[in-house]
Amino acid sequence: MAAEFQLDPRLDSDCYRVAELPLCTLLMMNDAQYPWFILVPRRVDVTEIYQLSEVDEAQLWRESRQLSEALMRLFDGDKLNLAALGNMVPQLHLHHIVRYTNDLAWPGPIWGKHQAQPYEEEQAQQRIQLLSAQLGI
Amino acid sequence: MAAEFQLDPRLDSDCYRVAELPLCTLLMMNDAQYPWFILVPRRVDVTEIYQLSEVDEAQLWRESRQLSEALMRLFDGDKLNLAALGNMVPQLHLHHIVRYTNDLAWPGPIWGKHQAQPYEEEQAQQRIQLLSAQLGI
Repeated sequence: MAAEFQLDPRLDSDCYRVAELPLCTLLMMNDAQYPWFILVPRRVDVTEIYQLSEVDEAQLWRESRQLSEALMRLFDGDKLNLAALGNMVPQLHLHHIVRYTNDLAWPGPIWGKHQAQPYEEEQAQQRIQLLSAQLGI
Repeated sequence: MAAEFQLDPRLDSDCYRVAELPLCTLLMMNDAQYPWFILVPRRVDVTEIYQLSEVDEAQLWRESRQLSEALMRLFDGDKLNLAALGNMVPQLHLHHIVRYTNDLAWPGPIWGKHQAQPYEEEQAQQRIQLLSAQLGI
């Protein structure tokens, strides 16, 4: 029997679940310092993008594009940072981070710079609702 | 008259030119600490992936997939890091970095960690030849 997809426990504990898109689980990092969202393809044992089937890869980029456009409309950022690193959490996941020229880590990347600052619950739920509306989901 | 594409001067000075792919200029970062390659779509005034036409975006991911597979075959890395940041150099460019669990910056991202260590000219040319052969170009 094929193994079932399970979200990596670290992603699960560090993030809010926003939505189940056709291929990916959409997460919001619990760090109020940046609008920081993550796509995780629901595929087992995939750590690199090129390990996805071509059909899945095309779907990942469709979902990434929809998310990117929605994030930049909603948060009006100066730049979007997109990255698949996975050095700490090998399960394939794709970061989307809205950046501002006056944010904490600018112009460096955000990883490992400052400790995460968790959202107030109400603030998190509001962000998730705004993004869901922007995505039309 | 439409403006002609010109490689950003900072990318140009920090990198070796490896090849002209159908959409992208393929560069090798002049830093012998990591196998670090960059795809730059030859499109004017594009800073975000979602600003590419859908045809160009699909071609970018085709070239990224070919490059990723070739790099991991050639360098046998533990992980591939893929990122479009562009906080310092706005011209759209996509990093592909082969990572090892014993490399200098592991498990952090490589940006801003250690000063670049330029290649010996012969070593650089050998790497470029090996990759070109692996890419079949």
